[in-house]
Amino acid sequence: MARTMKAAVFVEPGRIEIREKPIPEVGPNDALIKITTTTICGTDVHILRGEYAVATGLTVGHEPVGTIERLGSAVTGYQEGQRVIAGAICPNFNSYAAQDGYPSQDGSYLAHQGACGCHGYQATAGWRFGNKIDGAQAEYLLVPDAQANLAPVPDGLSDEQVLMCPDIMSTGFKGAENANIRIGDTVAVFAQGPIGLCATAGARLLGATTVIGVDGNPHRLDMARRWGADVVLNINDCDVVAEIMRMTQGKGVDSAIEALGQQKTFESALRVIKPGGTLSSLGVYSEDLRIPMAAFAAGLGDHRINTALCPGGKERMRRLMNVIQSGRLDLGAMVTHRFPLDQITDAYELFSHQRDNVLKVAIRTF
Amino acid sequence: MARTMKAAVFVEPGRIEIREKPIPEVGPNDALIKITTTTICGTDVHILRGEYAVATGLTVGHEPVGTIERLGSAVTGYQEGQRVIAGAICPNFNSYAAQDGYPSQDGSYLAHQGACGCHGYQATAGWRFGNKIDGAQAEYLLVPDAQANLAPVPDGLSDEQVLMCPDIMSTGFKGAENANIRIGDTVAVFAQGPIGLCATAGARLLGATTVIGVDGNPHRLDMARRWGADVVLNINDCDVVAEIMRMTQGKGVDSAIEALGQQKTFESALRVIKPGGTLSSLGVYSEDLRIPMAAFAAGLGDHRINTALCPGGKERMRRLMNVIQSGRLDLGAMVTHRFPLDQITDAYELFSHQRDNVLKVAIRTF
Amino acid sequence: MARTMKAAVFVEPGRIEIREKPIPEVGPNDALIKITTTTICGTDVHILRGEYAVATGLTVGHEPVGTIERLGSAVTGYQEGQRVIAGAICPNFNSYAAQDGYPSQDGSYLAHQGACGCHGYQATAGWRFGNKIDGAQAEYLLVPDAQANLAPVPDGLSDEQVLMCPDIMSTGFKGAENANIRIGDTVAVFAQGPIGLCATAGARLLGATTVIGVDGNPHRLDMARRWGADVVLNINDCDVVAEIMRMTQGKGVDSAIEALGQQKTFESALRVIKPGGTLSSLGVYSEDLRIPMAAFAAGLGDHRINTALCPGGKERMRRLMNVIQSGRLDLGAMVTHRFPLDQITDAYELFSHQRDNVLKVAIRTF
Amino acid sequence: MARTMKAAVFVEPGRIEIREKPIPEVGPNDALIKITTTTICGTDVHILRGEYAVATGLTVGHEPVGTIERLGSAVTGYQEGQRVIAGAICPNFNSYAAQDGYPSQDGSYLAHQGACGCHGYQATAGWRFGNKIDGAQAEYLLVPDAQANLAPVPDGLSDEQVLMCPDIMSTGFKGAENANIRIGDTVAVFAQGPIGLCATAGARLLGATTVIGVDGNPHRLDMARRWGADVVLNINDCDVVAEIMRMTQGKGVDSAIEALGQQKTFESALRVIKPGGTLSSLGVYSEDLRIPMAAFAAGLGDHRINTALCPGGKERMRRLMNVIQSGRLDLGAMVTHRFPLDQITDAYELFSHQRDNVLKVAIRTF
Repeated sequence: MARTMKAAVFVEPGRIEIREKPIPEVGPNDALIKITTTTICGTDVHILRGEYAVATGLTVGHEPVGTIERLGSAVTGYQEGQRVIAGAICPNFNSYAAQDGYPSQDGSYLAHQGACGCHGYQATAGWRFGNKIDGAQAEYLLVPDAQANLAPVPDGLSDEQVLMCPDIMSTGFKGAENANIRIGDTVAVFAQGPIGLCATAGARLLGATTVIGVDGNPHRLDMARRWGADVVLNINDCDVVAEIMRMTQGKGVDSAIEALGQQKTFESALRVIKPGGTLSSLGVYSEDLRIPMAAFAAGLGDHRINTALCPGGKERMRRLMNVIQSGRLDLGAMVTHRFPLDQITDAYELFSHQRDNVLKVAIRTF
Repeated sequence: MARTMKAAVFVEPGRIEIREKPIPEVGPNDALIKITTTTICGTDVHILRGEYAVATGLTVGHEPVGTIERLGSAVTGYQEGQRVIAGAICPNFNSYAAQDGYPSQDGSYLAHQGACGCHGYQATAGWRFGNKIDGAQAEYLLVPDAQANLAPVPDGLSDEQVLMCPDIMSTGFKGAENANIRIGDTVAVFAQGPIGLCATAGARLLGATTVIGVDGNPHRLDMARRWGADVVLNINDCDVVAEIMRMTQGKGVDSAIEALGQQKTFESALRVIKPGGTLSSLGVYSEDLRIPMAAFAAGLGDHRINTALCPGGKERMRRLMNVIQSGRLDLGAMVTHRFPLDQITDAYELFSHQRDNVLKVAIRTF
Repeated sequence: MARTMKAAVFVEPGRIEIREKPIPEVGPNDALIKITTTTICGTDVHILRGEYAVATGLTVGHEPVGTIERLGSAVTGYQEGQRVIAGAICPNFNSYAAQDGYPSQDGSYLAHQGACGCHGYQATAGWRFGNKIDGAQAEYLLVPDAQANLAPVPDGLSDEQVLMCPDIMSTGFKGAENANIRIGDTVAVFAQGPIGLCATAGARLLGATTVIGVDGNPHRLDMARRWGADVVLNINDCDVVAEIMRMTQGKGVDSAIEALGQQKTFESALRVIKPGGTLSSLGVYSEDLRIPMAAFAAGLGDHRINTALCPGGKERMRRLMNVIQSGRLDLGAMVTHRFPLDQITDAYELFSHQRDNVLKVAIRTF
Repeated sequence: MARTMKAAVFVEPGRIEIREKPIPEVGPNDALIKITTTTICGTDVHILRGEYAVATGLTVGHEPVGTIERLGSAVTGYQEGQRVIAGAICPNFNSYAAQDGYPSQDGSYLAHQGACGCHGYQATAGWRFGNKIDGAQAEYLLVPDAQANLAPVPDGLSDEQVLMCPDIMSTGFKGAENANIRIGDTVAVFAQGPIGLCATAGARLLGATTVIGVDGNPHRLDMARRWGADVVLNINDCDVVAEIMRMTQGKGVDSAIEALGQQKTFESALRVIKPGGTLSSLGVYSEDLRIPMAAFAAGLGDHRINTALCPGGKERMRRLMNVIQSGRLDLGAMVTHRFPLDQITDAYELFSHQRDNVLKVAIRTF
């Protein structure tokens, strides 16, 4: 095996480029994965633009599909050469946060040093690949806590079929899981980008019988119908809040899922939930949010607002791959464009400008 | 029995006065209660001040303790003369909202008429006594849906011992129940008025082992200690958020309960919850709320925000009276002052200005 | 309107016959329903055979589809002539049991009179139609607590499409709801009669990605596939427990649903659930059950066993009809045979002997 | 440090003796604990008697209190010399079972080899100390997965105060946690041995307001009162089932906790739960159980039966120690007798025969 590899590294705002880097050493609890396919996430675009800061020289990317190249001495139950994925969030399940039920928040508990009065944790505490440690847009990826995080890919599933599991699908489905869905529910999903589409599919998978997809892009609304929406609403064609209240005879929906991260969608979601309803928030907000008093029923509406960070771990990945394998959903169809790792800057160019109706790109490494 | 009765009615902003009114007729599903003791709630003060609008001539008050004077023809299982209470929120359990799990929201589901895009329900939809129908600060009270709402008072409990059950205790305890408390949790309760004190007691009753009471009033902080707080923090003596983060080694509390209804307390509650933590909100907000992005972990903190309206119904009242009867908590001790119904304007005067360290007043009717 | 009606009454073991009976009087909280379609349930067969005792002269049947003929004086929000259904279990939602979260158990709480040490309630306490009061196999049905129990049928749905909602679908779906299903679960459903088939459909609807249908009847296994089973196992072709353990690599299934009511199926369900798994039991058992120590992991397996009685109420019916209306499932297809009310003895004959691959019969009244 | 240590090893049925053994080597994820205090559990008595088989030469015991002697190379966040405990069940939190929510079942998932049709796991799969690997009744204990399992003891807590956390308290409290307790509940706890006493205390801590302790030993019933029972019933003085049904006016209790592991207590627990009630089972059963059809309401009672294996992990231990530290409960008072490790055979003699009103013994090692 070579001593160096190609990796897409953050150089400075506006520049993510392929560089040669040493292939990492493997500690007792690590695994080295030879990446076969990865993808670019909206968060990577924020990194590219300098809107989310990472260290210069860091390899970006957090959605790995590949084969096990080398296993740490303390990692058991896997074979080298085995096809695996790992979650975008790659928790240490030994942590207090994980044992408390919040593995994605590992790294945030008990991490505060000063007495400054601010939150003692980073919003993205549990996210390591391409954030705190080198990521997946490379020929090789070092996976820490490998025993907890390596998930074997079932025979018969292609790289692209499982490529959405590590992040998009896990996040979108968590949005549906956080929405307290019961059989017969009406659920509105605000924004139908890749995560919103997965939330739409997840809401249907969990028993909602009226799933309403909301977006301004007709192409994405078509995808929404295909992946589970019973009704789609184009924000450019109607007053979505009024329309949803009309459809529900003024009651509102049982749950709304926010999948964009903006005041407008958050507020609309709040305005359409019934008394007793749930707002499941997936978006990454960049500004303070405002809760209109009326939409919040002055605090008396038996409302719930739930947020989430993408769940990881091998059991989560196993379950998501089951969904694919069972034929419930073909998430591979989300890949609209393909690039070799060498041309990843072209992929960033296309994806960051949402050209050519791109939904997700596949980056092929070997 | 007389044909008329005395009742405290809303006349105009600034005036709630005793008037003579007809004793109500009893329909098939109603019960007429002879009130023996009632109390004044903070909401009544808002009504008095014209900050919350009710119809002129409406009898105010929503915390009834009394005896059954007359039962509707379809109400079974009670005897006239029996001592009973009814919840401040007096739901129709036959409603869609109740069957859906939200009895306090009865009246709000399917109530929208237009297509205006606003929420089709009132924030206070499920609250009837002293809001939509005549209330409890009177000699007699007509209880609708009596079969669902009349809760017999166990022998041996005085009027004052059960006087907090209909509202203050049910609301405060709901704040604790909504906080997802597990054994060993740390819970901060922001504001220690009557509802906050009940939330404090409720948090301890549910297994929290570090209950932190926050207020600016030393007398109320003393009460907080007596009713369950392990630690009390005076907002005038320290930076409460910083102090709580220090106490929890930067992790934050498992849950925070907001019991005032202001931006300051809501925001502080949000700032001290751990990743994965719950903000249980009890306050009635009068202005839009702001969610600081950092406190909200940009939407990635696995946070939950839960709101509630006071639960009612005979089973709820039965359970709350069990708490009193078992000796777990002596909520009768919350009554600091007593007035006859005739002098209720004096009681409003004292209570609305928080004079003489008043916590709650008892209004004695007979 | 006539003063009398035709009704299928229990005469003696072996005889259910059409008789003339007075059309019932309507009390303030009642509604009189003109039945257009009803069906026969397995329980009715037990009544017919004298295995389950009901009063001589009682009208049997508990699955009503019809139109409102007359409304009680206190029932609001409906119109005469409106098409409605009501649940097989028709609870009083004002009861302690309902407010405690168990409406189907209404009638059982606080019902004990003696000090005999036995359970103070009947197993079938909440079931009234065709058990404690006259039932639905008649021209007219009196529905008590009508405000809580009448569910309007959405336009466009036929009688047969909603005929399974009152009992079979509500029960089968409850079996799935009680199984703690999460996305990616493997669920085995033991027995694929009408209730088992609905449990199979419900398990899939709730996100199980490997649903295993078990039965001995090839026709029913075909239906199981059609309604959601990914895999079907014929008990005559394999050792089902061994096969399921093999399919799950020795781990067992996440949940098993028992839908027959026999030791064999109960025990098999227990033997195949994983440590931490749930056994959701729907069957009506006629004999004591035995829990094999090994299958129960000596009590150390983090197992859950949940039982249920069919949920009722208008909100439940509304949700189930949503499932039909959304096109998720065509339960009308379960009707394999049709009879007029006059020929109901023929329908009992066919259904009780499971002739001609009957699944469910429709009884047409008008 | 010495190369060998004293350890209580299982020699043959009837003989557990002190032997010299090598002090274990420390792998990268291990920690070596110098035991200062440990105790004997009822399970150890079963091992002593040969009723539960372990390997000859195995060191027994699973309740360690001590100091860190040596840390594995990959274990971070601890210092040598630090006082710690570890749970009796010492899970690998990287396992599928743990990530699925059942850490105590680690070792049981995916463990089946054959196609024998039996459960592919041992009832005690997650229990390692003194079962699969050397245990805590020794001078030194090797803790695997130390990062997940070492819980620092807060300053000010003595060894005896935290000695019950690893097993008795964690198990008993889990029994209460599994009982679905809500504020105002009535809970009956069958058997008041050490685990039953902790279940009693746990039920009260979680908000039950009528806790009924059942046993035949007056001394233990006194302890039950002291630790939270509102009422105690001596099985020798009354028909406990009849008495509980009388106390609850025929309704039954909301939850019953079984803490002995016998048909009699299991069956009594089932007979006293209300429709909708929960049976939380803690006992280790040695024979098949029988479910009487009437007590089970023929499967129609909306009943839940939950079993559990003692939870472990550092977060669990941290929470339990919080309970002690907050002064909610003084579990150190459960220690009635003390022995040095050298005299552990005397301790077994006393404890196994329940002499001298022994509840728990402390074994002091250094």
